Amino acid sequence: MSDRKSLLDYWKDDNSVLWIENYVANVKIRTDYKVETLLHYEQSPYQQISIVDTKVFGRILVLDGIPQISTLDGSFYNEMISHIPIVTHPDPKKVVMIGGGDCGPAREAMKYTGIDQISVVEIDERVTEVCRKWLTPAAFYKKDPRLQMIHRDGMEWIQKNKGNCDVLIIDRSDPIGPSTKLYKSKFYKHVFECLTDDGVVAFQSGSPIYNTSTLRRTFQNLKELFPIVRTYLVTIPLYPCGIWSFTVASKKYDPLHADLGKLQHQNTKYITPEVFLASFALPKYVKDLLAEKIDE
Amino acid sequence: MSDRKSLLDYWKDDNSVLWIENYVANVKIRTDYKVETLLHYEQSPYQQISIVDTKVFGRILVLDGIPQISTLDGSFYNEMISHIPIVTHPDPKKVVMIGGGDCGPAREAMKYTGIDQISVVEIDERVTEVCRKWLTPAAFYKKDPRLQMIHRDGMEWIQKNKGNCDVLIIDRSDPIGPSTKLYKSKFYKHVFECLTDDGVVAFQSGSPIYNTSTLRRTFQNLKELFPIVRTYLVTIPLYPCGIWSFTVASKKYDPLHADLGKLQHQNTKYITPEVFLASFALPKYVKDLLAEKIDE
Repeated sequence: MSDRKSLLDYWKDDNSVLWIENYVANVKIRTDYKVETLLHYEQSPYQQISIVDTKVFGRILVLDGIPQISTLDGSFYNEMISHIPIVTHPDPKKVVMIGGGDCGPAREAMKYTGIDQISVVEIDERVTEVCRKWLTPAAFYKKDPRLQMIHRDGMEWIQKNKGNCDVLIIDRSDPIGPSTKLYKSKFYKHVFECLTDDGVVAFQSGSPIYNTSTLRRTFQNLKELFPIVRTYLVTIPLYPCGIWSFTVASKKYDPLHADLGKLQHQNTKYITPEVFLASFALPKYVKDLLAEKIDE
Repeated sequence: MSDRKSLLDYWKDDNSVLWIENYVANVKIRTDYKVETLLHYEQSPYQQISIVDTKVFGRILVLDGIPQISTLDGSFYNEMISHIPIVTHPDPKKVVMIGGGDCGPAREAMKYTGIDQISVVEIDERVTEVCRKWLTPAAFYKKDPRLQMIHRDGMEWIQKNKGNCDVLIIDRSDPIGPSTKLYKSKFYKHVFECLTDDGVVAFQSGSPIYNTSTLRRTFQNLKELFPIVRTYLVTIPLYPCGIWSFTVASKKYDPLHADLGKLQHQNTKYITPEVFLASFALPKYVKDLLAEKIDE
């Protein structure tokens, strides 16, 4: 299923300097980030988890050899995957993240005072623990009584919860390791059923350069279920090729008609009301990609 | 002056497969592209020029070790540096490119029938010759009588031409090698004087991640001269971190009020009227960067 393969490979150069290698096999691009300090490395029951310090990206969370989130641009990702579905819904009370154990998107959701409950369903408790120690200020976990951590399989959880989420955020990692099942077509159906009658969901939907079949499948699977489906783009310098897609699907509200006055952008590093709308203006090659029929 | 350093380094892995290495020193990121075939390699009087074939990017022009333009995304760059200033001006007759010896931006300008003269001022004739052979259909050079190739130093040319260009496109490469002088502050003044009284210019202005001082300097130098200065962004998967900036400066016309009906986007891969406008919606960290005072 995956069109991306990576291997965890820390290596030392001739000066004994440590580098992390991220190899995207299907495009034959290898990106190496110079490591200042390897802070943590472990094999959890689900994946390899490590934390490194680098010069420009700051601290990076690495899962199964793929850099996931950094101090520099983690907020670009977190803001764009969370504010857009939250603002699209006029009055969300219950917001649930599937994945995102680092709690980055949850932190963005907390900026909205109208939300009553914010749940993070993260299969790998070790991701949360490691991020709590190395990435996220410890105070944050105690500060907001609306936050609930659920260490369960996302697919299982979503199958058991029907019709009660106003906003879902599918912060799945690449389709290797524990995230694989969050890319299966029946998962999209469970997501639809988990939402309220006017619910909104946003998916991490891959690179428009080297995860093209992931992006097309996500878009087309959602099109079969939801009346409103829109792909939007964000730039994530940490990721190879630097451009990433999210896809929002909605039962009732169109993000292009959202009340942008609600957007809590005072403390953001990336999103503004203008960026919210601009992210939906897709370059022609991405529009063409989404229009292609899947015959794989 | 430069905040980017790269070295040309083709290397072979254990399987004798050739890779090209692009190292951005100030961010400690190394990007390696697997080479299918090294088609051409030479040292011109100005720089190292090579052409390689790769799997996903297709053919790449490499100058002094830095990948410049590829089959995959060359049009993203060429369209965004040319259509935006051309469409901003209501009736450009004379359009001049400084740099861009591959004639990519010139090819985009040719789509506008109202333009009478398209000149490319490229210091390194070898770039043009190599691109003519390996990158650009030979037919293209004969087809359009409006195209004029001028193999001269861009700084010299621009100093001698006053008040007669409607649109200038400063397609400078990184501030190493022959492009260095196109980053000096007096160059911006010559550009201003080279334009007509209602002229428009677009600059390649660097990565907002690792050429931050280049971007800020370009923006602020132009702000001292032009009433309208706007930075816009494009995603270039070939370049490390994937996000790139251009800056348009205008004596009279605001790109945000351009007549987008003029945008000839029939044969584009990237730009559309929506993308034209969306590219000016800057993420907050870029807005903040441009607002910073230069005290270096």
